[in-house]
Amino acid sequence: MIYLDNSATTRPHREVLETYINVSERFFGNASSLHRLGIESEKVLNRSRAILAELLEVESSTVLFTSGGTESNNVAIKGSLLHSHQKGNHLITTKAEHASVYQVFKELESEGYHVSFLPVDQDGLVSVEQLEQAITKETTLVSISHVNNETGTIQPIYEIGQLLHRYPKIRFHVDHVQGAGKVPLSIKQSHIDLLTMSAHKFHGLKGTALLYVRPGLHLTPLFHGGEQEFGFRGGTENVAGAAAMAKAYKIHLEKAPSAMPGMKKRREQLIHHINRSEGITLNSHPTNGALHIINLSVPGYKPEVIVQKLAEKEMYVSTQSACSSKLNEPSRVLLAMGKEEELAASAIRISLSFESSDEEVYSFLCALDQLLPSIRKVVKK
Amino acid sequence: MIYLDNSATTRPHREVLETYINVSERFFGNASSLHRLGIESEKVLNRSRAILAELLEVESSTVLFTSGGTESNNVAIKGSLLHSHQKGNHLITTKAEHASVYQVFKELESEGYHVSFLPVDQDGLVSVEQLEQAITKETTLVSISHVNNETGTIQPIYEIGQLLHRYPKIRFHVDHVQGAGKVPLSIKQSHIDLLTMSAHKFHGLKGTALLYVRPGLHLTPLFHGGEQEFGFRGGTENVAGAAAMAKAYKIHLEKAPSAMPGMKKRREQLIHHINRSEGITLNSHPTNGALHIINLSVPGYKPEVIVQKLAEKEMYVSTQSACSSKLNEPSRVLLAMGKEEELAASAIRISLSFESSDEEVYSFLCALDQLLPSIRKVVKK
Repeated sequence: MIYLDNSATTRPHREVLETYINVSERFFGNASSLHRLGIESEKVLNRSRAILAELLEVESSTVLFTSGGTESNNVAIKGSLLHSHQKGNHLITTKAEHASVYQVFKELESEGYHVSFLPVDQDGLVSVEQLEQAITKETTLVSISHVNNETGTIQPIYEIGQLLHRYPKIRFHVDHVQGAGKVPLSIKQSHIDLLTMSAHKFHGLKGTALLYVRPGLHLTPLFHGGEQEFGFRGGTENVAGAAAMAKAYKIHLEKAPSAMPGMKKRREQLIHHINRSEGITLNSHPTNGALHIINLSVPGYKPEVIVQKLAEKEMYVSTQSACSSKLNEPSRVLLAMGKEEELAASAIRISLSFESSDEEVYSFLCALDQLLPSIRKVVKK
Repeated sequence: MIYLDNSATTRPHREVLETYINVSERFFGNASSLHRLGIESEKVLNRSRAILAELLEVESSTVLFTSGGTESNNVAIKGSLLHSHQKGNHLITTKAEHASVYQVFKELESEGYHVSFLPVDQDGLVSVEQLEQAITKETTLVSISHVNNETGTIQPIYEIGQLLHRYPKIRFHVDHVQGAGKVPLSIKQSHIDLLTMSAHKFHGLKGTALLYVRPGLHLTPLFHGGEQEFGFRGGTENVAGAAAMAKAYKIHLEKAPSAMPGMKKRREQLIHHINRSEGITLNSHPTNGALHIINLSVPGYKPEVIVQKLAEKEMYVSTQSACSSKLNEPSRVLLAMGKEEELAASAIRISLSFESSDEEVYSFLCALDQLLPSIRKVVKK
């Protein structure tokens, strides 16, 4: 199998699953229980929190465990409203966000919030100047993803953070789901208030994620109930999931220095091939952008057919984000980048992991070359 | 180890963990991906949904997977408001609910909703007549737990369902977390609209739960984003967690017929002992109530000291619900039952599982007998 859909999800590492099993069996007590079994579970939970905090270079009390990137994004945005609605009802995001941010703002817009959806340029980048111009006295929240999930575009989070630092009443939320461990980002230096990460994007387990919450920031919980997670999220803690996430991120960061050069080489190999292939258009920037995500379009083809045909050869890529793939619509992200509808409707995303090899990329490109002529006959418009 | 805190959480079955590992490794694809790996994951997800639906005797499309009982309770209640707020803003619950229901209603009350918190009698029971009297033209939601998590009181869900069936604009939500598989309940016959279950209460995994949503009912998602879970919950599906929950509930129901008589015997053994022990008061009903939860008070003792001292002997019980145990307050549930503050502040909950044995209960009672004189000297008020 050649799996190049790592931005949808990754195969969990065996060591991560072992951690999960080990903790589930040895520390099954409820971390909120007062007795020794509970206290031991709580210690594992807090050790997992401390490991992640150290890796992120933040305080341990700023790491909240959640059930997924979508939950983290939702609570970061919706949980901020109550604490800021007296200060203003203007929110800023971009036209190129993942559905778990974009749809939240669409919902809030329908509820009466004033939302600015910043445009992006042909490379998918937001303009720091346009962001500054969009800020009003009513602005209370800016939410911008670090790495775009479809194209790999890296937003200038550091520069945005420097700008927003001059507006202390504006909260800055960053969806770091695609960037985590692959594109460097300093939470502190970028003055980030809220940051989302999801474990299953780096060989961790589905249903496990975190939200960084800057010290002193209050959030309205999405789940009322017990006082777990510093009162921000009621519910019995998924201790084994937290430990598995810490394990996965630790392994991920340990592998990064030796894996990144190879990933860079594979990206170049892919882009070189795409650029010399007739009928294939590169949508990602050829040199900037995250190393692991390459977006291309094959105009005239139905991308879902390409995805299926490649899958028949045990090769896996995707059309757009998994969360949006069943909508069967042109990519909103590519349209926002000014791509024509034909390009936006025929996009393929290739996403690498540290585990991807040169041979896999080579075999994939050979298969793609062989495939296109055969299916053009079938579905050419 | 003698673990009698099964209402806080249970030890996961080995077979459940094996299912989780097996699915995590073999079906790691994103269930929303269009390719074969995604489709195979989606099949496992839907098979898990179908297994649970069949065991609950409901349609497969009514089972939504969530990250916990607290999430299910929150989305059932808050998700119903938008769909009913034009019909009225009166909500009904009881004074004896778990924090993940009670605190949601407290929050809604502070936001301006009119909430009736029904009283309970000395056995913890709500009165169907009082419920009927509380209904107004503005009532849109009634939320009552099936089995009380501290005392084991079984509410007359069937009778309440018959009553509410005559009020079609009122939604009926039941927190079935403690009852699942141990106290029979028919969703259909009780005309339940929304029902919460959590896997880690029956030897499943933390972070996995479900919400039953009656066909045709709309809910506002807590998580906006992708269209997963029939559009009710965005986010990458935790397929392995869903499969593990289905496995756990199937095992649980298979064990029930042979395990229940022994559990009944153990409950009688406990109650017989409590009733003849000087200085111990039984708070649970002696004959009615769920078989697995027995609540007692030892006035004059700090219950957390008893819990700790028993833990030193590797015996585990709890004070109140794990979600409330760190508040260090008298039990709200026992106060609602009219118990004096001294009793409500000295409660101990013993909760059995199908795995508990006669010997464990016997050893526990011996230990409790030995313990009380020794610590009375230490903390007698």
